[in-house]
Amino acid sequence: MIEFSLGQISKIVDGILEGDEASIITDLAEIQHAKEGQLTFLGNPKYRKYLSITKATAILVPKDFSSFYKNLIRVKNPNLAFSLMISCFRPTPPLPNPGIHKTACIAESAKLGENTYIGPNVVIEDKAVIEKNVSIFANSYIGAETQIKSESVIRPNVTIYHNCQIGSKVLIHSGVVVGSDGFGFVRTEKSIKKIPQAGRVVIGDDVEIGANCSIDRGTLGDTVISKGTKLDNLVQIAHNVKIGEYCFIAAQSGIAGSSTIENGVTIAGQVGVAGHLKIGAGAIIAAQSGVSKDIPPGTIAFGYPAQEQKKARREIANIRSIPDIKAKLKEVEKMIKGSK
Amino acid sequence: MIEFSLGQISKIVDGILEGDEASIITDLAEIQHAKEGQLTFLGNPKYRKYLSITKATAILVPKDFSSFYKNLIRVKNPNLAFSLMISCFRPTPPLPNPGIHKTACIAESAKLGENTYIGPNVVIEDKAVIEKNVSIFANSYIGAETQIKSESVIRPNVTIYHNCQIGSKVLIHSGVVVGSDGFGFVRTEKSIKKIPQAGRVVIGDDVEIGANCSIDRGTLGDTVISKGTKLDNLVQIAHNVKIGEYCFIAAQSGIAGSSTIENGVTIAGQVGVAGHLKIGAGAIIAAQSGVSKDIPPGTIAFGYPAQEQKKARREIANIRSIPDIKAKLKEVEKMIKGSK
Amino acid sequence: MIEFSLGQISKIVDGILEGDEASIITDLAEIQHAKEGQLTFLGNPKYRKYLSITKATAILVPKDFSSFYKNLIRVKNPNLAFSLMISCFRPTPPLPNPGIHKTACIAESAKLGENTYIGPNVVIEDKAVIEKNVSIFANSYIGAETQIKSESVIRPNVTIYHNCQIGSKVLIHSGVVVGSDGFGFVRTEKSIKKIPQAGRVVIGDDVEIGANCSIDRGTLGDTVISKGTKLDNLVQIAHNVKIGEYCFIAAQSGIAGSSTIENGVTIAGQVGVAGHLKIGAGAIIAAQSGVSKDIPPGTIAFGYPAQEQKKARREIANIRSIPDIKAKLKEVEKMIKGSK
Repeated sequence: MIEFSLGQISKIVDGILEGDEASIITDLAEIQHAKEGQLTFLGNPKYRKYLSITKATAILVPKDFSSFYKNLIRVKNPNLAFSLMISCFRPTPPLPNPGIHKTACIAESAKLGENTYIGPNVVIEDKAVIEKNVSIFANSYIGAETQIKSESVIRPNVTIYHNCQIGSKVLIHSGVVVGSDGFGFVRTEKSIKKIPQAGRVVIGDDVEIGANCSIDRGTLGDTVISKGTKLDNLVQIAHNVKIGEYCFIAAQSGIAGSSTIENGVTIAGQVGVAGHLKIGAGAIIAAQSGVSKDIPPGTIAFGYPAQEQKKARREIANIRSIPDIKAKLKEVEKMIKGSK
Repeated sequence: MIEFSLGQISKIVDGILEGDEASIITDLAEIQHAKEGQLTFLGNPKYRKYLSITKATAILVPKDFSSFYKNLIRVKNPNLAFSLMISCFRPTPPLPNPGIHKTACIAESAKLGENTYIGPNVVIEDKAVIEKNVSIFANSYIGAETQIKSESVIRPNVTIYHNCQIGSKVLIHSGVVVGSDGFGFVRTEKSIKKIPQAGRVVIGDDVEIGANCSIDRGTLGDTVISKGTKLDNLVQIAHNVKIGEYCFIAAQSGIAGSSTIENGVTIAGQVGVAGHLKIGAGAIIAAQSGVSKDIPPGTIAFGYPAQEQKKARREIANIRSIPDIKAKLKEVEKMIKGSK
Repeated sequence: MIEFSLGQISKIVDGILEGDEASIITDLAEIQHAKEGQLTFLGNPKYRKYLSITKATAILVPKDFSSFYKNLIRVKNPNLAFSLMISCFRPTPPLPNPGIHKTACIAESAKLGENTYIGPNVVIEDKAVIEKNVSIFANSYIGAETQIKSESVIRPNVTIYHNCQIGSKVLIHSGVVVGSDGFGFVRTEKSIKKIPQAGRVVIGDDVEIGANCSIDRGTLGDTVISKGTKLDNLVQIAHNVKIGEYCFIAAQSGIAGSSTIENGVTIAGQVGVAGHLKIGAGAIIAAQSGVSKDIPPGTIAFGYPAQEQKKARREIANIRSIPDIKAKLKEVEKMIKGSK
């Protein structure tokens, strides 16, 4: 059984303990479910209401937290501190031991680095390059000439087409498709012609891609997802899109062809970004927004069509004031009639 | 050739026949396509317009149906009755005979119950437990310590990560990913840190999950889909979400992290529910709604942002009345000027 | 190294060269990135602004293009002409040589035509028919009695359920699921009953289906995607939907059950079409629209709920005029008070 004293935990999370450093913590829980002996945290202020009912032995709180509780550990970032404690109490299951399963089909011209794990039924095509310490789980497919850099993890049932570049320490979840053809066609009088999709997908280091995402290859150049960016599940990245560093793109959002997302952008769930646009660095796009114009750096945008958040909110307030306008208008009419 | 008399059919569906009980039905069809010898039904009132053109020999109708037709069978629920007749006329292809395909890779420590079907290239990892009468189709992956209860069916190319719980009589369609990491990160000054996702996914009995859905594992606790709930295709269920019993979630909807959907909720297609919300029992959320606040039990909600349906409709009506407001305002101005 | 003179290129694209026919082109690029020795094109007028900075040796332009540039090739359709040049400069990697991989599991009763490629771990069930020159990539699954016509290409990790029809020259990308059960249930007092999904999916010739789409089988009849239609990634096609010829459906759009999309319709990204509707021939539905009523042929529709584009735009303009209405109303009030 894993256990830590509050004194030990304070050191691990680099926090200031207000309480009993000898108290023992044996598990973690969310604030509303936490019991005696458990550590919890207060990240989202929405959960403050559970302070009065939680049974947690101790709580990780922000430095300026003002309420009283029997044991508090003040930290710079409670989410980060709690995350650290999850690693301590619930260690992630280790990756499989290196080795190549006997059912894997690996082309003779493919190159495998040291200490790779290649699971059952994995298929690796001609001239693919898999660097050291890469893990590729069962039933995944790596196309010809694709390169996967060191330490990356490819979960089961992933498909990576030919001639793509996957960085180091990348994590790709199951069901993801990287490098399928972009949606490029020309309508002619009688039919529809396919535009060849001859570019690549290039994924930077430390990128994570959620389950069942699809990332199309470029037409001529590359579709790019830069270092440190995280995609949630079921995200669509169209051909020629360039995504900067350390962006978040939440589930079911889609970026249409040739758009650019600069560094540090946050895109919430079910957002659509039209083609050939630029989302400036650090912008935040609220959930379900439909972006049809460039978004300047640092802007918080919202709505369908998306606009600067304050404008969008004022618009909603304006709509909700229409009954008042009507009432006022009636009043004015009466006044006029009365004055005649 | 399968055939039934109208007398036989009336008995099967527990209905009241108005017509010729000796008439023979040899197939089923939708009302607009039905021909002589075929049975059809009237569920959706929208299809009433086809009554005058259908060639069906008989129609399953609600008990209080008022029009005349040569052969009517009155039933409590025409959809349910027709569904029963589909089972009779078009029996579902049987599941494969029990057996373990020679290409399946099953860990020695995994446990398989009696009469399981394990298809080609299925991978079952350490200590997984597959109960009796479970069918797992080709190229699916079952992670370590995952448990699948009796009678469940896993279609081809499904991925279930480690340490998940799948109930009895569950049906999971192809391309589904269960147990991938939740989208949990903390942005720090220089980069983004991953929060370990150490919880599970727990799926109750009689759940059906449509093609290409993704269901993330909990951070600490479980992501839960309770008994009898049905998910359509391409649905996103984020970490820590709790879904009650007998809910419907239609295609391409997404439920963000830590939200709770109570029993008997119906969520139409392409709906987004933000994180940390509660949708009360029996609520109905219309298609493409964006839910940003708790929804009380039994509410019909609609819109972006979603609100109670009547309010949402009044809002649309208000918007559409703006031209009238403008006209009235012009009139008022004229009256004032005229009166001066 | 591949190279063509401008004279040669003019002939290939059937264009009129204004410039030096001996100039040599060694590669292609987008207008903003093109360098000396490269050919580019001007399709989207949005990219005209790059005319002054591009270093391209020559540009494919529309016939009536008015600006001056050192080497222009005037063509009927610059996109189509450029597409043709991509095929010349970046030939698509050839399909694998015919052959059946030793790890493929093919039922004895399945029929394979001449010159098929069946990749590693492909599973083909009883009585499936794969016609000549079909390529099925690794880890894909073809259900019993499904038929795939000549020249079609099935990418890795595709799932096609039993008893579906795939036309000739069809291209299905990875992660696609064809023929899963439609979302058909009847809510009863105590639980939810499944309606058997006994129909098929029928896909016409020259259809392309993007990564991770899901296409459900019909309940009784067929779900149909007709000749020449192109689906982008993550598209949802529900049971009994009929899609006409030469339609485009962009990423993450969903068509609910029993709706009909007539020929030549264009549906942009993240659109939802409700069930039992008809979208008339040649209609265009803008991105993220929510279609809740039939759309007449040739209509451009937009919005949530979707309406004819002009109406939808006027509505947005009306909303944005509310502050003016309020100001005017205040003025009117003052005038009245002043006049008293």
